[in-house]
Amino acid sequence: MADDDRIRCTYWLETGDDPARAAEVIAGEQSSGTFVALANETAELKARSGARVDRLEVLGHAAQPSLPTPAHAPGRTGRYTQCTLSLSWPLANLGPSLPNLLATVAGNLFELRQVTGLRITGLELPEAFARRYPGPAFGIEGTRRLAGVPAFDGQRGGPLIGTIIKPSVGLTPDETAREVRQLVAAGIDFIKDDELQADGPGCPFDERVRAVMREVRAGEERLSRKVMVAFNLTGELGEMKRRHDLVLAEGGSCVMASLNSIGLVGLLELRRHSQLPIHAHRNGWGALTRHPALGWDYAPWQQLWRLAGADHLHVNGLANKFSESDESVIAAARSVLAPLRPSHPMRAMPVFSSGQTGKVAAATYAAVGTADLIFASGGGIFGHPGGLAAGVTALRQAWHAALAGIPIERHAQSHRELHEALAFW
Amino acid sequence: MADDDRIRCTYWLETGDDPARAAEVIAGEQSSGTFVALANETAELKARSGARVDRLEVLGHAAQPSLPTPAHAPGRTGRYTQCTLSLSWPLANLGPSLPNLLATVAGNLFELRQVTGLRITGLELPEAFARRYPGPAFGIEGTRRLAGVPAFDGQRGGPLIGTIIKPSVGLTPDETAREVRQLVAAGIDFIKDDELQADGPGCPFDERVRAVMREVRAGEERLSRKVMVAFNLTGELGEMKRRHDLVLAEGGSCVMASLNSIGLVGLLELRRHSQLPIHAHRNGWGALTRHPALGWDYAPWQQLWRLAGADHLHVNGLANKFSESDESVIAAARSVLAPLRPSHPMRAMPVFSSGQTGKVAAATYAAVGTADLIFASGGGIFGHPGGLAAGVTALRQAWHAALAGIPIERHAQSHRELHEALAFW
Repeated sequence: MADDDRIRCTYWLETGDDPARAAEVIAGEQSSGTFVALANETAELKARSGARVDRLEVLGHAAQPSLPTPAHAPGRTGRYTQCTLSLSWPLANLGPSLPNLLATVAGNLFELRQVTGLRITGLELPEAFARRYPGPAFGIEGTRRLAGVPAFDGQRGGPLIGTIIKPSVGLTPDETAREVRQLVAAGIDFIKDDELQADGPGCPFDERVRAVMREVRAGEERLSRKVMVAFNLTGELGEMKRRHDLVLAEGGSCVMASLNSIGLVGLLELRRHSQLPIHAHRNGWGALTRHPALGWDYAPWQQLWRLAGADHLHVNGLANKFSESDESVIAAARSVLAPLRPSHPMRAMPVFSSGQTGKVAAATYAAVGTADLIFASGGGIFGHPGGLAAGVTALRQAWHAALAGIPIERHAQSHRELHEALAFW
Repeated sequence: MADDDRIRCTYWLETGDDPARAAEVIAGEQSSGTFVALANETAELKARSGARVDRLEVLGHAAQPSLPTPAHAPGRTGRYTQCTLSLSWPLANLGPSLPNLLATVAGNLFELRQVTGLRITGLELPEAFARRYPGPAFGIEGTRRLAGVPAFDGQRGGPLIGTIIKPSVGLTPDETAREVRQLVAAGIDFIKDDELQADGPGCPFDERVRAVMREVRAGEERLSRKVMVAFNLTGELGEMKRRHDLVLAEGGSCVMASLNSIGLVGLLELRRHSQLPIHAHRNGWGALTRHPALGWDYAPWQQLWRLAGADHLHVNGLANKFSESDESVIAAARSVLAPLRPSHPMRAMPVFSSGQTGKVAAATYAAVGTADLIFASGGGIFGHPGGLAAGVTALRQAWHAALAGIPIERHAQSHRELHEALAFW
């Protein structure tokens, strides 16, 4: 975060116009200027409230605009300049307000005529934001404590080995509970609802929670460890609060919400109410990030949700089934783990998922440098010929090998479940 | 809206894969399937919960993918098929829940490997959504009543002629009130805060409302008509409620919120609390719509916010200063005005802005077929050589000409303010 009272945002910008002029248009549009000169935009007002172009660095040129652009766009010349643009705003324009921050750094910019590409790549906020907002209530340490999974000590511990209830939607509460029973018996650390499963009449939230928690509590009696289940309580505010209270009353240890469905106000209110870690799902994120010349990088975006209180944040996974590159996944995971600022680290736990198997454990560990993460695998567990317990054990063995610096094939020679898993992963 | 109990969503899809296979992958991913075959995805479960491909129509082919796509994407052949895809889901998968609807129709789809372009172009919801959600509390009729602006009767009435306080940010409360005093005296119908102006320490919300409402009330005594001011109360939930209450206590008649900043939960709670029309700002929308192969059309998107309670919805304007085409603006405005369904029209008022002058009045009226709209103009008013009153009058004259079917140049011959305006518009 920035060390003074300015909000700083960095963009990848492409423009057919003169880049300095385009930068001034953006800075003006997002502060005291508009598309005509104003008598009352005095020099004093501009000095007090204007956005400032702090950096403008040309990266290169393209012959075609990255985003479709109308024929009357200014300076349209068949030569589009790509650059890094850093803007800053006085905190006094809006105060440390997350909802209002969006209108300033990510408001009416993307559609400007001068812009043939605009992507938010960095965000540095004044300390006032970290002082005002709560950040994760549980984070890495709280999650490990509630799930009973310590950091790796050479023998045990490591990431939370998790999975997602499948089919995503369609199971009844009892069918869901049966799957949970098997997973608990198999030694899993973490289970989550799919984001498609919330409170449909086919699988009502309350019934599902009661049925699942019976299995979790029964498992706890046997194992002295409570499997963490992230129940998807996404909904209206009253619903989310009531559902949270039920999960808490049933002895649950986690709730899940879809960030793009509830918005910042939803997460802020949930955080205020919650006594459990909040597992934050980013579904819909693809629309904001899939085109490299538009929208957001994850690093700036996830900051907003961590400040607002997300404990776990999805980051996709290496060699995933989606179109995201490993490089982007790694950057996302590192950003979730990086302290926001020394005085307010507000670190959250990255959640790896999507086609994950033990084969990517070593690369994941090498990339993020920690096992403070949730590693969710579906096929990587369910596909094991030895059954679910063997699948969970094999994943854990793969992670232990990675954490101990032992090549996975060598570790497999003395670990049967891992050996069998390597044949199908 | 759909007439049975299925949720229907239509997409523009581009894929390097076989389109039928890609459609099945999307349908599976967004319902009971996943990327591996599951033993418990039984035929019965699939029949109960699976998404259905209702329509798949090939539109054409492209040699390049619209969205960057990894080299290992399936079927990558240098031939990308573009099509219209309609999917439907049983309402029972999620129930009539707006937040959960997003995960289903707009969740983890955009980043699928099979997808080189995906855009939501249509949405039809079962009646259960219209029964559950409130829709706009005031809409067109309530807004006209509060603003004292009737429909055009041949002499007076028409759209609400409005403007936006400029500079967007930087004015003190007193400076803002001075601008409002001049606008009220000039005969304006509607004034709004810029979305950048909320509750910064340089212009605190409470002070601004008190100072502005003094002018509005003074104007009301003189004119027997209260100018509608949309105060931007975007913020956390408690802040928004408190700010709403202040506006109400001061005699105000409108509040404004940025949809992408507060999210669905924020708007739903604001609607529940509000006794005033909600002016819904869409800033940030560009990131969701600027690339034609990604994100959303406005028609499906605005439905969500109308159901949740938006009374006014921004639609940009013809010949605007942004990159949006007139065609897109017209489609957006029509969608805001179209009844959701006969039993629950829930019509909202489209807000035209961005470089608007009287020169686009006739084309706007021709395109949307009504003057049930807010027409916000900045330079088109402030730039008038005869002053603000002449600027507002000229805009109204331009609209009256449009509504009466009189060419603007002819109308200008007998209307001085319009005549003068045509020279600078």
